[in-house]
This record gives sequence, structure tokens and C-alpha cells, in this order.
Amino acid sequence: MPDSDATQLLASAHLILTRKPYAHGTHPALPKPPRRAKPFAVVIFGASGDLTKRKLVPGVFGLFKEKALPDQFEVIGFARREKSDESFREEMEEGTKKFSRFAPIDAAEWKAFSQHVSYHVGNFDEAEAYQSLKLRLEKLRQSHGIEQFLFYLATAPEFFYEVVSQLNKVGLVGPDNENSRVVIEKPFGHDFKSAKELVTSLQTVIDESNLYRIDHYLGKETVQNLIYFRFANSIYEPIWNRALIDHVQITVAEAEGVGTRGGYYDGVGAVRDMVQNHLMQLLTITAMEPPGSLNSEAIRDEKVKVLRSISTPTPEDVARIAVRAQYEGYRSSDRVDPNSKTETYVGLKLLIDNWRWAGVPFYLRTGKALTKRASEIVVVFRRPPLALFKTQDNCEQLHRNRLHIRLQPDEGIHLRFNAKVPGKSAMGAVDMDFAYKSKFGSYSPEAYERLLHDFIVGDSTLFTRADEVLEAWRIVDAITSGWAQAPVGLYRGGSWGPSESDALLEKDGNGWIDL
Amino acid sequence: MPDSDATQLLASAHLILTRKPYAHGTHPALPKPPRRAKPFAVVIFGASGDLTKRKLVPGVFGLFKEKALPDQFEVIGFARREKSDESFREEMEEGTKKFSRFAPIDAAEWKAFSQHVSYHVGNFDEAEAYQSLKLRLEKLRQSHGIEQFLFYLATAPEFFYEVVSQLNKVGLVGPDNENSRVVIEKPFGHDFKSAKELVTSLQTVIDESNLYRIDHYLGKETVQNLIYFRFANSIYEPIWNRALIDHVQITVAEAEGVGTRGGYYDGVGAVRDMVQNHLMQLLTITAMEPPGSLNSEAIRDEKVKVLRSISTPTPEDVARIAVRAQYEGYRSSDRVDPNSKTETYVGLKLLIDNWRWAGVPFYLRTGKALTKRASEIVVVFRRPPLALFKTQDNCEQLHRNRLHIRLQPDEGIHLRFNAKVPGKSAMGAVDMDFAYKSKFGSYSPEAYERLLHDFIVGDSTLFTRADEVLEAWRIVDAITSGWAQAPVGLYRGGSWGPSESDALLEKDGNGWIDL
Repeated sequence: MPDSDATQLLASAHLILTRKPYAHGTHPALPKPPRRAKPFAVVIFGASGDLTKRKLVPGVFGLFKEKALPDQFEVIGFARREKSDESFREEMEEGTKKFSRFAPIDAAEWKAFSQHVSYHVGNFDEAEAYQSLKLRLEKLRQSHGIEQFLFYLATAPEFFYEVVSQLNKVGLVGPDNENSRVVIEKPFGHDFKSAKELVTSLQTVIDESNLYRIDHYLGKETVQNLIYFRFANSIYEPIWNRALIDHVQITVAEAEGVGTRGGYYDGVGAVRDMVQNHLMQLLTITAMEPPGSLNSEAIRDEKVKVLRSISTPTPEDVARIAVRAQYEGYRSSDRVDPNSKTETYVGLKLLIDNWRWAGVPFYLRTGKALTKRASEIVVVFRRPPLALFKTQDNCEQLHRNRLHIRLQPDEGIHLRFNAKVPGKSAMGAVDMDFAYKSKFGSYSPEAYERLLHDFIVGDSTLFTRADEVLEAWRIVDAITSGWAQAPVGLYRGGSWGPSESDALLEKDGNGWIDL
Repeated sequence: MPDSDATQLLASAHLILTRKPYAHGTHPALPKPPRRAKPFAVVIFGASGDLTKRKLVPGVFGLFKEKALPDQFEVIGFARREKSDESFREEMEEGTKKFSRFAPIDAAEWKAFSQHVSYHVGNFDEAEAYQSLKLRLEKLRQSHGIEQFLFYLATAPEFFYEVVSQLNKVGLVGPDNENSRVVIEKPFGHDFKSAKELVTSLQTVIDESNLYRIDHYLGKETVQNLIYFRFANSIYEPIWNRALIDHVQITVAEAEGVGTRGGYYDGVGAVRDMVQNHLMQLLTITAMEPPGSLNSEAIRDEKVKVLRSISTPTPEDVARIAVRAQYEGYRSSDRVDPNSKTETYVGLKLLIDNWRWAGVPFYLRTGKALTKRASEIVVVFRRPPLALFKTQDNCEQLHRNRLHIRLQPDEGIHLRFNAKVPGKSAMGAVDMDFAYKSKFGSYSPEAYERLLHDFIVGDSTLFTRADEVLEAWRIVDAITSGWAQAPVGLYRGGSWGPSESDALLEKDGNGWIDL
């Protein structure tokens, strides 16, 4: 799509988004959401799918075990297949026993929990099913005092609008309905245009503030650790800017190839599958200004400001700043086009044109079949003035200070600085390290459990707002259309990607740092 | 002494010091001193003393072993007692075998070294002895091409002027003699006036640039590590100022009491014995502006600027900013006055009135018979704005970031910052640590060996310049005279000092950090 179209669409999206500024939360007006939920019913659409028994019901069960739920709550599976409450409970029991982090499950405990689980049969486009669902929820309101209705769309994206508009028709969700929330899972469109259509159509039937877009890849802890690290310490913020930072490297590397997901992945590729959401999340959290509060709208306001400061690259820009490649053997993977041009690796240089970051390259890379699984943000500081050490033996060995924020595996912080080598007029790079695990012990939060809890209590910090999604697509669209005619490079599986990606940094006198 | 006197004296000292600005090294003019020495002869005055056989000759031997000496060098002991070269060598062999870090000593190696060792008999005030010394050195010049004459005064301070003026009379040292250097050891006076007299009298017979005042307590490595740490890294300098640092704590704690040194220590006390030199050294290196080069004059210029920015405290100031105390039992120590008012502990708050530090307290403490032996500089940063975390469970637990520069024991760097406690909306203080030993292995430099080498090659960085000595005395004098009428507190041996010292920091809302 031409840039001007995108700009126009964004402008109108912005209008829609700001239609009800106070309703969806200008921060000073919003109280902190209570951490313990009010009575609720959650309806899971697509309840026959894998996600429900692997993640969602075990997740709610986990919250139940942790006593994070109110006394009154209901979990209602919604799907096409005829099924009794009892047989749905049995399926869920089987799934929970297998996938819960609390397995093995105590029978009495399951029994207590399962009293809250039931099933509602219906097609997604069947108006009557929604009518009967509404009656059912009305009864819960009367019998159990449940006022809060949550809808989890564990469905394919093409049903998002259908389900929400049906819910809207029977009055279960709507722009003025404060007690309803809907979760959808990515992908949120496959380009700017489709994402925009989805945003626009959904916003006719539900208020943006009640629409939760899950991005569970990062996990709540990692994002929060990053925010705390930046803003709960006074020593980092003053050096977090163009005057002192040389460049930033963000890597999300996977060791696995495409495996059995070729059918989904081919035609999508790394930039849409990973950069548009996960890497942009990391970029914006790293680069954002300090928010006015930890309120989700305040944080998301700052994140989207970062994206708005990244100008849309022209096709000529793309040739200079973006590298794509496929690992050798990708085309012979199951359900992959033998002539596929889909990239499994992307290397990218983005500039954020604001006061804090102008001129500081943010290098992003992500790929499959790389050396190892690792997600890491490396902040490389400028070299100190060398004049002082020019008479020393190894002035050229004055390393740039580096701060590594390690997300996966083994989350932690790592600082590299220079120290004198004892007994010599020479310097050496030395390291300090902090691992969350070593201080706080092993902590394996179940990502879905945390996100479900946030959804239940109405904390949207970790969910992606429409304007973020669209701004990210604006940038990603420009890259994919810039690539349209260009060939796709190759790289060896198990390597760190194609040499063109190294060259991207070498042009600036930099290089990817081995993780 | 009244403040105005001191000011006047300092002004005249400044004139003397700047008399020959280019001769004693305006930095751009000075080339880097060669690290390998030119042929030299070193004459040790007071060669019968312990220091010579324990430290000095073993130190020169160490440099010989390390091949850090030129082929032509001579070590000449100078003392009153009649002695042959041979018997002096035997004494030195005995000392070296016992105290050298290279013990056991290879006989052949000692033999080769001892060819360079000889003895010269004479009284310090005996003109003829200097005449004959001159002849002897003249011969060395002719026979061995030795042009560089070094004089090490391992004598009591009262002989400093006598020896140097005798050397001056025979032309061995003098304001225009570039090839002679003299080392003296502390104490450099016992107050401003005596220090000033010593400076002034010595400067009539030797140029300041050739007078080396040894302060070996800190050791070359520690001071250099500190300088490298501050200026070889780009992340510390931008946060090293009043905008970001709350206060600085400098501790030099000794676990031992006065022991057998009561005769020397009593009447001197902690402020003269430790603050005037060691703690002021640490203070100035921590607080100084980046020097223009690593040249010794450049560094000493910056250090003395820090001292000049500390205003002379009035007696009323002293009552507020200085605490003195004696450990219980001190007065019954060997050779200590039973009514002694000598302090064995001092706690002090100093302010540096310049752009970088105005308003940032520097808390200094040193004492004997404390909890443990530890020298450490702790830089405490300001708290970040709390607003962001005010809705969190433990906002008050937002620790101030701290950087610990550990000098003794186990030299290293330690950084404390805040991190999110996994799974909770809470923060915890976490630590990163770097130990020189763990990176570079154990390194035990022989302090004297390093300092002798610097003396031989003419690197005066680690020696104290006259203006530094005097500026430090200016401050220390004000404190001791402010104390004249005040009682001396008591503290329990093995504690961290008197409660008055804690109160000194509590007034500012701070507290000593346990080391």
C-alpha cells in the first residue's frame, strides 16, 4: 500500500481511537484495577480446540488453586459440537491433568473447580446460540451476582468480527458496555490494510478499551522486569539516550526450524510473524520515554509514540536497512512452497527520530534454525574519549561498555566494562552479571495464567492496543513491499544468519554481538 | 593557626610552586616517561634502618629479577656506622632472603645483583661525607655512564632538610638539576605550619618536580584501578555528579588497635595519621574532574583542585561535621598517655563546593579496633522518582542504587540495583559483583617495588605534590583546632565506631553502610 494511504488510514484510526478518550482511560482518571477479580463468567469460543484444554482451562484452574479467583465464577465452553456439560468437564479434566503446572491434580479440588465449568453449544454465526447464551448469563447474574462477562476468542482470526458482532447484537458487548471484555489472539491481520479493517470493524461493535489483544510470547514477567529495570533505578535513565548510547541490538533467535508449521508459516515469514509484534514490543519498551504511571494506557501511549517516531522506509531505504534470508532446506519442509520466497530470517536497522534516539541505530534480528535459542537486548554505549589512554599499551582495547538484558533463556542483566589489568598499563573487559534465578530462585510463571488473570481483573498493560498494531504494520508493510522484487538470501542452519546481516552492521562500523 | 595565615601561606606556596611551570611539567610539554630506566645510582640515607633491608633493597632486587633495571645501576647505602661494602651486602642478602617476594633467592642471582650494592659511611650533617659521595658518583658517571642520581631518605623527618641541603651544597641536587631526584616518606609535617616550613625550606634546595613524597598505603594498583574505572568507561562519568549522586561514603577501617605503635601514634591520631593523606587521596581521586592526560602533573592538578574546593571549616562547623573518639582501652596501651585525648576514630562530613559536587556530602571515616579491616568507597545515587511505583506494594522498598568500589580486602566493584520480584508487584535489591582476583587471578604487587620503579623512571603520579599536602593540612588543621576544647568520645573495640558518627549521617537522613 502506498504510504499516503497508510497515513490517511492511520489518521482516521486515530480519530476512532480517541473518540472516547475518558472512557478507555486517560490515565489520571483511571483507578488502579483491583488485583482480586470481581465475580465473572468467561465464555471460551472455540472450546473444542487444543488451546482450551491445554492452556485456558488449566490456566483458570491454576488461578483457582492460587486463590486468585472470586467465589463466584463460571467457565463456559462455546462450540459447534453437541456435548453435555459433563462430557466437556471430562475433556477439561483430562487436559488439566496433563498440562497443568499443578499436576497431579487432587480429585476433590478438581471436583470443586469443575462445578464452575459448563458447555454451551452453538455455531459462531447462529443468532439463536447467542440469544440462549445471553439468557444463560442473565440467569448467572440473578443467581450468582455475576456482573462481569468475559469472552475469549480461541478461534481463527476470520471469526473475530462475526463472534463479536453477534455478541453485540444481543447486547452482551458494545461501546457502552463496561462489564464485558473480549480477548483475541494474534495474528491481528496480515498487513496494514487487513489489520486496519479488523480494527475498524471491531470498533463498531466493541470499545477498544474492552478489546484485549494477547501477545503472550514475551510473557508478563519479562516485560515488567524490563520496565522495572529501566525506571526503578536512577543510574540507567540518565545514560539512556543518544548522547551516551552508540546503538542497540535486539535479537530473538530460535534454534528450531519451521518444523510442522510450514503450512501456517510459509507466505507469512519472520518479519510478519516476529518483528511486527515481539521485536516491536521489545523495541518500544527499550526506547520509550518514562510513562507517567504504570497504568496500562500510560505505558501503551509511550510505546506507540516510539513507533510513530519511526518513519516509513522507502523501497530504497529497505534495500539499505533490511536483510532477509531463508535457511538452507526450508523449501523442502513439509507444506512449504518449493519456490517459496518467505524469509525465515530478518535483519533490520531502524532509526527512531526523536530527541532521545535520533541517530542511534536499533538493529533487530530474528530467525529460525539459528545457533541457539536466545532473546536479548544489548545496549552498546559510546566509547569514552580515548585521549586519556592514548599513551597506554592497548588503547585500542578500550571496549565499549555494554549492558545485556537477557530475556531467554536464564533471564538476567549483564554489564561489561573496562578495568585495569593488574601490574600492567593495559585494560581488559570485565563482566558483572545478575541472574533472576540466582536471586529469586526458579520461577516459571504459566504465561496464560498470568494473562488470564490480567484479563479477568482488567489490566491491559500486556495487551496490544489497536494503534500499536497498526503503527507496527505500517513499518512492516513498507519492508515487505520494499522486498517484493528482491531475491531472498540463504543461510546455513545452526549459524547466526546470512553474511548480508553482518554487512548491515559493518557499514556502520558495528557487528552483531555473539550471545 | 588562624585561617587568614593559612591562606596567606598557601598563596605564597602557590607562587613558589608555579615559579617554574614548564620545568616541572605543564602537561602538553611533558613526554611520557620511558618505562625502562636509564642507568642510575640510588643512595639510601639511613641504610642501617629496618626499611632498607626489609623493603628497599628487596624491592630493587625484585626489579632486577623482573629485568626492569638497566644494565648499569648502583645501590649505595649511606649511614653513620662504619661498615665494609661486603658486610653491608651480607646484611642486605640476609634481609632479601627473608623479605623478598622472590624468596628463596638463587645464590648466583644474588651474586650478580650484589655487585651493584655498596656502602658509604657518613653522618647526615657531615659535609665531607657528601664530598666523598660526590666523588664516588662522579667516578660512576665516568666508569659506567651513570647520569641519574637518586636519593632515598629512609630517615626521620627531622633530617629531610639537612640531607637535601647538604646534597645541594655539593651540587648533587638543586633547582636546575634535572638528573637528581629525592624521595621522602610521610609524615610531611604534623600540621599546616610545619608542613609549610618543610615545603618552603626544601624548595630552596631542590625543585618540587624532583621531590617525591611517598604515600604507599594505597598502592599503585588501587589508585590506578580507580582512575581507569572512572575514565575508561563511558557509563559512569555522566552520572558522576550532584544531579545523580546523593552522597559518597569513604571508609578506611582497621581491625587492629594501636599495638606497639602507641609511642608514635599518641598525640598524632586518626585525622593526622589517616585522613590527611590516605582518605584525602581517595576523596580526591573519586571527586576529581577528568584529567587532560594520565600524566602525573595533570592528575595532581585535578586532585588539588578538589581540595581547594573544600572550604576551611570554622570551629562551629567542626562541631557539626566532625566526630572523634577513642576505642575503650586505648589509654592503657603501651606508651600512650593515660589521659590521652588522641582520637583513634574520626567520622567526617566534607562538602566540595564546585559545579560537580555542591551539596553532595562526602562522609569519611577511619579508625582502629573496628569490626574489620576494610577500605571501600560507596557511591550512593539519588532515589529515582517514586511516582511511578507509588501504587506498588512496596514503594518504600525502592533502594537507592549503590556502587561499591572495594579496595581492601578483595579489590572489586559491586553494583546494587532494583529488580522486580518475579510473580509479584514488588521490588527487591539485587547485586552484581566484579572481583579483580576472579578475573585476573591473584596479584600481590610489592608496593615498594612499584614505587621504586616509578621513582627510578621518574613517574610521580603516585607521589604527593606539595600543594596537595598543604591543602590537606589546611582542612585537617581546622578540624584539630576546632576540637581543641571538645571531649573525646569512646567506642567499643570491634564495633563500627561511636554512635555520634551514626548521628552525623542520620542528621542528613543517611546512615553508614555496613561493609
